[in-house]
Amino acid sequence: MRILPKSIEKMIAEFSRLPGIGSKTASRLTFYLLKVSPVQFGQFVEAVSGLKNNVQQCRQCCNMAEAELCDICKDSKRDKRLICVVEDPLDVMALEQTKSFTGTYHVLGGAISPIDGVGPEQLKIAELVERVNALRKDSSESVEIILATNPSLEGDATAMYIARELKPAQAKITKLARGIPVGGDLEYTDEQTLTDAIKNRKEI
Amino acid sequence: MRILPKSIEKMIAEFSRLPGIGSKTASRLTFYLLKVSPVQFGQFVEAVSGLKNNVQQCRQCCNMAEAELCDICKDSKRDKRLICVVEDPLDVMALEQTKSFTGTYHVLGGAISPIDGVGPEQLKIAELVERVNALRKDSSESVEIILATNPSLEGDATAMYIARELKPAQAKITKLARGIPVGGDLEYTDEQTLTDAIKNRKEI
Repeated sequence: MRILPKSIEKMIAEFSRLPGIGSKTASRLTFYLLKVSPVQFGQFVEAVSGLKNNVQQCRQCCNMAEAELCDICKDSKRDKRLICVVEDPLDVMALEQTKSFTGTYHVLGGAISPIDGVGPEQLKIAELVERVNALRKDSSESVEIILATNPSLEGDATAMYIARELKPAQAKITKLARGIPVGGDLEYTDEQTLTDAIKNRKEI
Repeated sequence: MRILPKSIEKMIAEFSRLPGIGSKTASRLTFYLLKVSPVQFGQFVEAVSGLKNNVQQCRQCCNMAEAELCDICKDSKRDKRLICVVEDPLDVMALEQTKSFTGTYHVLGGAISPIDGVGPEQLKIAELVERVNALRKDSSESVEIILATNPSLEGDATAMYIARELKPAQAKITKLARGIPVGGDLEYTDEQTLTDAIKNRKEI
C-alpha cells in the first residue's frame, strides 16, 4: 500500500537526489509546493522547464551565457589581459560580488580529481592555454593569469597543472593570497592556514 | 550587467522561495541541475510539472490521494472506528513508518493559529465532526479519536478546540503520550516535558 500519490513520491525522490537535500527536506519542499498558490507553482514549473533554454557556454571564458559571449567578456571596460581562472560559475558570482576585480574570468568546469574520474582533458584547460597564447600574439603588453581554484587538494593540484601548462606562454601567473580569513578565530584556524599567514606576513 | 543568464537567475530566485533554502543553497541546486545528465534533468522537470496531476483530497480523511478515497481509507483491514487526527500529510507518513497504528487518519491541513490567520473554519474540523457523527449513527460500537496534533501551542489549542467540538458525539477522545523522547538527555530536556514525564510516570 502506498501512503502517498505516485506523483508526490516521485517529486520527493527527485528532490532527494539534489545535493544536501535529505528525504525529510525533500518531503517538506514537495508539500510546500503542493500548498503554494497556482501562480507561484506555475512560476516554479516555468523556471525549471526553462532553466536550460538560451543557456550556452561563453565562447571565450566558458562561463554560462545567454549569447555567444557572456556579459563580462562583452564588457569593453573589463581588462582582457587579466584572467582569473576559477573552478565553476558560482566562484565567478562570489568574486563579482566583491566588486574588486576588473579583469575577465575563465571557468574550468571543475578541478582535477582522479578519484572522481576528472582529468585535465575534462576541464577547459586547453581553451585557457589557447586564449593566453592568442593574447600574447596580439600585442606585447603583459598578460596576468590569477589562479583562483579552491584552496583544496584538488584545487591546488589543478592550479599547479595549469601553471606548468602556461609556462611556455610566458604570462605572469599569480594565485590568491592565503592567510587568516576576516572574522576567523586564531584558536580554531588550522595549522596550514596559520603557517601560510605567518610566512606571508605583511609590514604595517 | 548581469553575471548570469536570466533563466538561471530565475531558477535561483524560485528555489530561494522554498522553505529552508537560502540564496547560496538555491545557487548550488540550480548549478547542480545545469550539470546533471539530460535524462535526470528530464525526470526532474517531469516530476515538477506532474506534481499536481491526479492529486486530490481523500473524501474521507482529507489526506492527499490519487482516487476519491486514499489507500488507507480504502484498506478493509484498517480500523475505521479509530481515527488519528493530525495536522498534515507528513504526520501521516511519520506515523505510518512506525507500523504501529492500525486505524485511519484525519488530516486537518494545519493548526489553529490566529497570528497566521488560520481559524477553525480553515481546517477540516467540520468534516471530522461529521465523520464521527456518521460513525456513531452507523453502529453502537465505540469510536476513538486520537488527537495527534503537534506538541506546540497551536497544536494543543487545536486539540482542545476539537475535543470540545466532539463532546456532543460522545466518542472516546485521547491524545498522544507526553514524556521524554528515546535518545533524549534529561539534562537538556525542557521543564514542561520533564513535568509531563513525572506526572505520567508508569509502574514497571
